[in-house]
Amino acid sequence: MTPTLEQLAQRGNILMLVWGAALVFSMHAGFAFLEAGSVRKKNVVNALTKIVMDWSVSTLIYFAIGFPIAYGIHFYKPVAQIIGDADNFNFIHFFFLLTFAACIPAIISGGIAERAKFGTQVLAGGIFVGLIYPFYEALMWGRWSDQVGALFTHIGGAAFHDYAGSVVVHAMGGWLALPAIIILGARLGRYRSNGHSDPPPIHSIPYVALGSWFLMVGWFGFNVASAGKLSEISGLVAINSLMAMVGGVVAGALASKNDAVAMYNGALAGLVAVCAGSDKYHPLGAVVVGVVAGLIFVKAFTLINEKWRLDDVLGVWPLHGLGGAWGGIAAGIFGNVVFGGQGGVSFVSQLLGTLLCIAIALVGGFIVYGILNRTMGFRLGAKDELLGSDLTVHSSKAYPEEVF
Amino acid sequence: MTPTLEQLAQRGNILMLVWGAALVFSMHAGFAFLEAGSVRKKNVVNALTKIVMDWSVSTLIYFAIGFPIAYGIHFYKPVAQIIGDADNFNFIHFFFLLTFAACIPAIISGGIAERAKFGTQVLAGGIFVGLIYPFYEALMWGRWSDQVGALFTHIGGAAFHDYAGSVVVHAMGGWLALPAIIILGARLGRYRSNGHSDPPPIHSIPYVALGSWFLMVGWFGFNVASAGKLSEISGLVAINSLMAMVGGVVAGALASKNDAVAMYNGALAGLVAVCAGSDKYHPLGAVVVGVVAGLIFVKAFTLINEKWRLDDVLGVWPLHGLGGAWGGIAAGIFGNVVFGGQGGVSFVSQLLGTLLCIAIALVGGFIVYGILNRTMGFRLGAKDELLGSDLTVHSSKAYPEEVF
Amino acid sequence: MTPTLEQLAQRGNILMLVWGAALVFSMHAGFAFLEAGSVRKKNVVNALTKIVMDWSVSTLIYFAIGFPIAYGIHFYKPVAQIIGDADNFNFIHFFFLLTFAACIPAIISGGIAERAKFGTQVLAGGIFVGLIYPFYEALMWGRWSDQVGALFTHIGGAAFHDYAGSVVVHAMGGWLALPAIIILGARLGRYRSNGHSDPPPIHSIPYVALGSWFLMVGWFGFNVASAGKLSEISGLVAINSLMAMVGGVVAGALASKNDAVAMYNGALAGLVAVCAGSDKYHPLGAVVVGVVAGLIFVKAFTLINEKWRLDDVLGVWPLHGLGGAWGGIAAGIFGNVVFGGQGGVSFVSQLLGTLLCIAIALVGGFIVYGILNRTMGFRLGAKDELLGSDLTVHSSKAYPEEVF
Repeated sequence: MTPTLEQLAQRGNILMLVWGAALVFSMHAGFAFLEAGSVRKKNVVNALTKIVMDWSVSTLIYFAIGFPIAYGIHFYKPVAQIIGDADNFNFIHFFFLLTFAACIPAIISGGIAERAKFGTQVLAGGIFVGLIYPFYEALMWGRWSDQVGALFTHIGGAAFHDYAGSVVVHAMGGWLALPAIIILGARLGRYRSNGHSDPPPIHSIPYVALGSWFLMVGWFGFNVASAGKLSEISGLVAINSLMAMVGGVVAGALASKNDAVAMYNGALAGLVAVCAGSDKYHPLGAVVVGVVAGLIFVKAFTLINEKWRLDDVLGVWPLHGLGGAWGGIAAGIFGNVVFGGQGGVSFVSQLLGTLLCIAIALVGGFIVYGILNRTMGFRLGAKDELLGSDLTVHSSKAYPEEVF
Repeated sequence: MTPTLEQLAQRGNILMLVWGAALVFSMHAGFAFLEAGSVRKKNVVNALTKIVMDWSVSTLIYFAIGFPIAYGIHFYKPVAQIIGDADNFNFIHFFFLLTFAACIPAIISGGIAERAKFGTQVLAGGIFVGLIYPFYEALMWGRWSDQVGALFTHIGGAAFHDYAGSVVVHAMGGWLALPAIIILGARLGRYRSNGHSDPPPIHSIPYVALGSWFLMVGWFGFNVASAGKLSEISGLVAINSLMAMVGGVVAGALASKNDAVAMYNGALAGLVAVCAGSDKYHPLGAVVVGVVAGLIFVKAFTLINEKWRLDDVLGVWPLHGLGGAWGGIAAGIFGNVVFGGQGGVSFVSQLLGTLLCIAIALVGGFIVYGILNRTMGFRLGAKDELLGSDLTVHSSKAYPEEVF
Repeated sequence: MTPTLEQLAQRGNILMLVWGAALVFSMHAGFAFLEAGSVRKKNVVNALTKIVMDWSVSTLIYFAIGFPIAYGIHFYKPVAQIIGDADNFNFIHFFFLLTFAACIPAIISGGIAERAKFGTQVLAGGIFVGLIYPFYEALMWGRWSDQVGALFTHIGGAAFHDYAGSVVVHAMGGWLALPAIIILGARLGRYRSNGHSDPPPIHSIPYVALGSWFLMVGWFGFNVASAGKLSEISGLVAINSLMAMVGGVVAGALASKNDAVAMYNGALAGLVAVCAGSDKYHPLGAVVVGVVAGLIFVKAFTLINEKWRLDDVLGVWPLHGLGGAWGGIAAGIFGNVVFGGQGGVSFVSQLLGTLLCIAIALVGGFIVYGILNRTMGFRLGAKDELLGSDLTVHSSKAYPEEVF
């Protein structure tokens, strides 16, 4: 029973998307361990728990509200007795795009670590995944993308281009985190009254590395399966992701004198930045995009945490917020033919689309976190924060067997 | 040299199955770390070692005996000088199904942790993978499945349906573990003579989480590649696996007040339960299946460990035994058209098939463990148990550099 | 819009290769954790950092020099404005082969751990990935493989056969490590002046296991995607990899009385050895190849570290050097029809090709490390070594929060 060519192509689409979805799902293990390694031991269980809870709430809300908003496809009608090809594709398409949507709370989580209330954080994540993220997604990737694309083409000469989500996913997450970080305030003791900055030593470099590895490996699913259909799969996207990643590592190493956290985050910065134009760059252009992203991460981490004193624990605004915005803009530069790119991009459109994302994220973030902060409260009580969320929220230490 | 359509379809089958097999193989890393995190430090090396040894013995025995029993295909004849398409498919089919078979000792391992003899456990696992598991597999998936299907259709109106192994794999493993747990008895000091229950604090929540992540991610290979052929790959299976998983997380969180172990095991409970009907449920039906499985896990964990005082260390009977049985039965409920399912299932057949599995597992488990217990002994000596298997069986602590 | 059969086949090639490349990339997480677990706590950050830095430098150098040397394909010309199928295939082919090339410094890293200068090691790795590895790769797999194949056929009756790199990758890496180990000398205190051998207790068995799991799982991408094209994908390769792996585990267990490190490295030894003939062996032949490799690892680990006193920390010469050489030779034995193999191999050619690799590696290794040792220095200062690279090179302990 050989399937027809059309059937085989459709099954190939599903295989590619489920391969990609499983890889991007594994990136959430990466978010979990990246945060678990970057906080203090008293908040490790909390870090590991938040990510799986955010994922679960995201799944239910994106299924019920977010995906229908973005793509106009909902699953409320009783599933047809015999599921057809279109249904199967919609299901797997939902799964793949969920793995993107669920990055939003996972990104924010790292910025507000060690001091946010569990319930408030989960609820805010649900609101973003259900409403704000899919609204921008609808504009750029979804049901209104044709009209928005026409508008941007009218203004800038080409539609806004974000192949795999530098802006739609990462900038959105990173710029939503900024209001949360501002509203929450720094961890107790993070900045001394005498002006001294006192970053608490982190729990585990191996967990930071493990988290980064899950993210780095999974990212190839993130970017490559963004082709959407097997017939559109692109080797260029893979190699550009690779080149930007290693550019970020090298930049992170040079800017930090071989600091492990900077190098592993440099890799991630390169990957954040390359998403938007990964189908457009020359591989050497992708290296440059990654190098710049790695440098932005190292410098802006100091800016937000030492100069502005906002206490972005994992540096998610430098990493996803600035890295993603840089990626959106960079696609309008290095995607052009003059830089060896594939062309069909507009700097003006990229800039406008990126600024629109930032504006939506900042407004949405301040409104949602502001309201939640005044109603249910966003910040842990001081005693709970000092004891750590592991004991006060989850009733368990990370290493229960340890006596101290 | 473009392959023909038939060749391409066959190669697509192999690609799907090797993708799935690699993912399910990675689930065994999950079993290893789930157990390593859930025991005491003195048995961490033992946990990590058992899984890789069980895997290896399972491979050799399932190759030599189990797979031929289940499917009538053996590899003893000299391989044809030129391997053909059918051979290549058989090879990869074997690998994929081995990754299921080898779950049996891996499941049992978590229930009998910290007190079983290494050699006895490995031998028992080999017997199950070589004889008992493939016997039931032959009935439900293998060489006798047509006849058994006809019989069940005669009795219940439809064949027993277990798409990805809630019953064939998980219930079998979980119910084989029960006799082992009963015969072994609880760990020394687990229950005090004054009646007090004293669960030893576990080693590492991060390892529990890491193990769960490997299992959660790998499960999408487990369920989706159970299509067997690329032409049968189903987006519905993927989304239902997802929905049951998150249902289990939410249920675990609510039933335990955000306990990390309950949430991560809740995810696994949902996944265990969804396997059987993952190609049949409406996604919302899958959520319900997962929620119930998560609740069963939390409640039955207390039942077996606190009320019955059997000391199922990881809760494998609640997770795989009850979760798998619930999954088998649930397929006969939520798989029906009235619940938005795809239909073609029978509650009676599902119940009978599940009970048959439980009966085989209990009888087989008591016989095998009973005989081994009387002949070679099943339980570690008290001194070895107190010192821990790491030093007494493997001559190494988990963290050799540590001085205490 | 159904793609044509040819297009679908080409997209299938890309999907298979990016699936494989992502898996082999994840093996580098394995190298990182295998080393992080096998050193002392004071060098854990260094281990984790070296691998990602080596990977990054390898990517840039293999892109710029190595891949063009091996295959005559370079990417310096401006990418065509519209990327075609051939370009996309070249890109993904580069990525997949890079994941192999970057194994060279990752393999060496484990042998010279805890005492080599960071910069020198990275530079040496770059030279190997840029020049020496691709030279041998060009002979055996690349642009000169037809001529070399004809020569070997003339001498031995068949071309040198190395399906997935037992020799090209592993023996090359392991035999390049030997000169490095010899030139560096043993770690301070590794061998006492009174003749006593004093191996320092390692950091973490769980990290060793974690590293091995990443490697074991990823290896199925390494070997199976070595098909290069989807139409050549082989179930035999998958099953043979599996059988050799478990043969190595069982051999490692028996030869070491269930030592965890020996079992996990035994798995890797089996996988190293099976690569060359994985498309040729009967599955039972593969078991034998793996068993022998596991025994070689255990015995040669003692030989190099206890008898020769060279201090190969992870045993990379026994594992990759001897295991890879054994794999090259074994393909000329068990690949033959008389052992149930597929035939078309020559013992003489396998022996010659393996010896050629060893010769190139030894000569290249002594020259490169010798020159670097005299110019920029290869060995850490004694004080830095005693304090550990984490603090002296990377300014961070592995667990910064720990006070001792």
